[in-house]
Amino acid sequence: MNKKQLFEQIQSKKSFLCVGLDPVLENIPKHLLKEEDPIFEFNRQIIDATKDLCVAYKPNTAFYESRGLKGWETLIKTWAYMPEDIFTIADAKRGDIGNTSAMYADAFFNLEQSGMSFDSITVAPYMGKDSVSPFLTHKDKWVILLAATSNEGHHDFQLLETPEGKLYEQVIKVSSEWADSERLMYVVGATRGSEFANIRRLAPDSFLLVPGVGAQGGSLAEVCEFGLNDHCGLLVNSARGIIYAGKGEDFAEKAREEALKLQQEMQGILEKAGLI
Amino acid sequence: MNKKQLFEQIQSKKSFLCVGLDPVLENIPKHLLKEEDPIFEFNRQIIDATKDLCVAYKPNTAFYESRGLKGWETLIKTWAYMPEDIFTIADAKRGDIGNTSAMYADAFFNLEQSGMSFDSITVAPYMGKDSVSPFLTHKDKWVILLAATSNEGHHDFQLLETPEGKLYEQVIKVSSEWADSERLMYVVGATRGSEFANIRRLAPDSFLLVPGVGAQGGSLAEVCEFGLNDHCGLLVNSARGIIYAGKGEDFAEKAREEALKLQQEMQGILEKAGLI
Repeated sequence: MNKKQLFEQIQSKKSFLCVGLDPVLENIPKHLLKEEDPIFEFNRQIIDATKDLCVAYKPNTAFYESRGLKGWETLIKTWAYMPEDIFTIADAKRGDIGNTSAMYADAFFNLEQSGMSFDSITVAPYMGKDSVSPFLTHKDKWVILLAATSNEGHHDFQLLETPEGKLYEQVIKVSSEWADSERLMYVVGATRGSEFANIRRLAPDSFLLVPGVGAQGGSLAEVCEFGLNDHCGLLVNSARGIIYAGKGEDFAEKAREEALKLQQEMQGILEKAGLI
Repeated sequence: MNKKQLFEQIQSKKSFLCVGLDPVLENIPKHLLKEEDPIFEFNRQIIDATKDLCVAYKPNTAFYESRGLKGWETLIKTWAYMPEDIFTIADAKRGDIGNTSAMYADAFFNLEQSGMSFDSITVAPYMGKDSVSPFLTHKDKWVILLAATSNEGHHDFQLLETPEGKLYEQVIKVSSEWADSERLMYVVGATRGSEFANIRRLAPDSFLLVPGVGAQGGSLAEVCEFGLNDHCGLLVNSARGIIYAGKGEDFAEKAREEALKLQQEMQGILEKAGLI
């Protein structure tokens, strides 16, 4: 999916919501445990209940890998179940030397080899250009590079001052020479509210993937105040707030209610900004 | 395996060699392709041929993930086949917010959940303390943190000057407050030769995992000149130079010959340093 198509989806659905598909067995409704693959069944129902309200799904690969082979199988089935017109994000935070990053690209982009072909993957920047470039050689696939993350530990290195600004600013500046905003997005935590204006200045045309709204305490209004651009430019992720909205047999209905609340808030924001 | 036991293995085998188990289907001997799981069969024979010459095995997870479900299965089988007295490294370069890193720790440390229990995992530092800490809560398990990597892209961010030194120096300094040298190692590329003295000063007691000897051009002698400490403190990795030493039916024998050359060079170095 290219940038134009993504914006069209946002306009058509009046939403820039990304649903994080990060379930753990301990937290899903008990009645699903009798299913052959409870996590997949959970994801399937969440997708059915939210697919008209969101433009992206983002499974975090850790939640699947932690369950070994059967978890990896659930990830593949979940990917296959996602509607074709929804932007898919493998939240994998990979990155290695060139020939190895090429393997990770195969793992998440090469359907024939791995059984999955996500639209995008999150990548860690520490190893530099040749660790990111192999992901950019796949047609119509995106890299979503970690810039300013939502967790407490972002203080440790991302905010370090370098001769040309903070480290996360350098990550954005340097990486913008590797690919343009048609191929490269950035992860910017919603909890970085006050830094959004700065980030938008550094990457005016880029989409930003924004985790941290909801459970982690970030504010949608603040994110949008500084983060919106003329093609929206935001994918705002919510995971726990949506997928665990209900704990009973009506969990999918409850998830839909939460997704709907966010979609409606987003619709108001898009209308106010003249984007729909 | 704890630090003392690792040094005992090094003394007993007169080697600090780590063999990188990073095979791709295109490069393994053709006669193996008739096997049900050619990559596992390749790894099995490499392990049988080298296990008395090395102290560690390091499969890079990308090489397995790239093949989807069957690749993940091969990784689990390969882990299970590694001798118990050999230090095992999941070269996964993971790292995410706290609750998610805990899942990655389960993926590689929690046998019951994932089917694997490596001794250690490589972790990317960009997201800071809470992305690393969850890996440190598993008894007798190690984090091997990326510090100065062997690839060209290490220039992009790792060498950036911060108020207290280069970024990779800050990574070592700051992370040394999270765990001591009994739980934390660092990845330092062999191609960083001249920086080794500096790194050893910052982390005098830590083991360093050193890729980049051989195919990537690093020199073992140079690494040891600056990197050895009083308990060796080095795990030097070779992958392609060993596993692809032969292309025919005698590939395992050829791999052994290459591993033996390195082991003998290492024995000389350990003897000269009075460590055996």
